[in-house]
Amino acid sequence: MSEERHGTRRSSGPRKAQEIFDATLDLLAEKGYEGLTIEGVAQRSGVNKTTIYRWWPSKGALLGAALIGARQLDFTPPDTGSLAGDLEVLLHTVVTLLTTRPASDIAVSVLGAATQSPELAVHVRDFFADRIALEQPVFDRAIARGELAVDTDTTLLMDLLAGAAWVRVVLRQLPLEKGFVSRTVATVLNGARVQT
Amino acid sequence: MSEERHGTRRSSGPRKAQEIFDATLDLLAEKGYEGLTIEGVAQRSGVNKTTIYRWWPSKGALLGAALIGARQLDFTPPDTGSLAGDLEVLLHTVVTLLTTRPASDIAVSVLGAATQSPELAVHVRDFFADRIALEQPVFDRAIARGELAVDTDTTLLMDLLAGAAWVRVVLRQLPLEKGFVSRTVATVLNGARVQT
Repeated sequence: MSEERHGTRRSSGPRKAQEIFDATLDLLAEKGYEGLTIEGVAQRSGVNKTTIYRWWPSKGALLGAALIGARQLDFTPPDTGSLAGDLEVLLHTVVTLLTTRPASDIAVSVLGAATQSPELAVHVRDFFADRIALEQPVFDRAIARGELAVDTDTTLLMDLLAGAAWVRVVLRQLPLEKGFVSRTVATVLNGARVQT
Repeated sequence: MSEERHGTRRSSGPRKAQEIFDATLDLLAEKGYEGLTIEGVAQRSGVNKTTIYRWWPSKGALLGAALIGARQLDFTPPDTGSLAGDLEVLLHTVVTLLTTRPASDIAVSVLGAATQSPELAVHVRDFFADRIALEQPVFDRAIARGELAVDTDTTLLMDLLAGAAWVRVVLRQLPLEKGFVSRTVATVLNGARVQT
C-alpha cells in the first residue's frame, strides 16, 4: 500500500527518485540544512549529480520534494471506524514525528532552516498542505457518520491537536506524559461536538 | 504597572539592563541570531561591552534574559472577569506575537536559532515556563469562580490555544481568518468544560 502510494505520488522524477528523497532526509537529519548538499545526496543515493540538478535546481526544491516523497515521513491516514480512534492515530503520528529519531531531527532542522529561507518556507507550507489533504477523508467520514456537524472547521481541529504537541515538545520542551494523546483528543472532540 | 513589574523582575543586573534587553531584541529582529553580537548590543544600548559580558557571559545567556525582560515581549496577564474573555486576550497576544513586527521576527529568529543551539533552547524553555507561570492566575480565578473543574489540565488548554496559532501561522503559513480567536477559544473551552 505504501509502495503503491509512493508510486502514484512520484509521477514525475528520475528513476531512482525514492533513493534520492530518502538520502536527502538522511543527510538532513545527520548534518542539518547547512550541511545538506546536492553533491552529498548524489554520493549517498548513487545518482549522478547532474541528474539531480536537472529535476531539482536547488537544495530547497529537492528538500521540498523529499519531505513529501521520502519514506522517513511516510504517512497513511488511519481508518479505525471512529473519529476518536482516527484522531488518536493522527496525533500519535505527530508525537512520534516530534519525539523519535530521525524524524524529530528532520522536523527540527526543517523548521529552523525554513525560518531563514523563504524558498524552503514555501516547501514547508506545501508539505503541511499535502498532509491536511491526506487527513481530510478522516473528517469526511466522521461527518458522513454524523459524528461532526457539516460546517465544522476541521482544519482547526487538526491545528489544535498538532499544535498542542508542537508547543509541548518543541517550545516548552517538556515530556509528554502518559495519556497526553487520549486526553488531548477527548478535549478537542468534546469542544467540536458541543454547539453553543 | 509594566514598569513596576520590570523593576521587580530585574532584581539583579546592571543599571541599564532595560536598555540592554531592548537593544538585544531590536538587533535580533533586524539581523537574526547570526548577526546578533554583544558588541552590537553594547553600541546600541550605550553600555560598555565588558559590563554586558560581566552579567551575561554569552550571546545565548543575554538573549535568554532579554526574552523575559525586554519591553518588546512585555506581557501583563488579563483579568476581564470571565475565563472566555481572559483566554481571548491571551490568544490574541499570541496571534499578535506571531503576526506583528518586530515581535514576529523575534519569535521566528529565536525559534530557528534554538533548533541549532542547545544553550539557547534552554533559554526558550525558560521563557515559556515564565509565560505559563504568569498565565496561571487566569486559570486559578476560573477554578475559584467554578468555570473549570479543579483537576483541569490548564497547561493543556494553553498548549491547544497557542498551538493552533503556531501551526496555522508558522507551519501552515496561512492567514488567520476573522473569528479565529473567538472560535478557537470557544472550541477549547467547550472541550474543557464537558466531562465525559
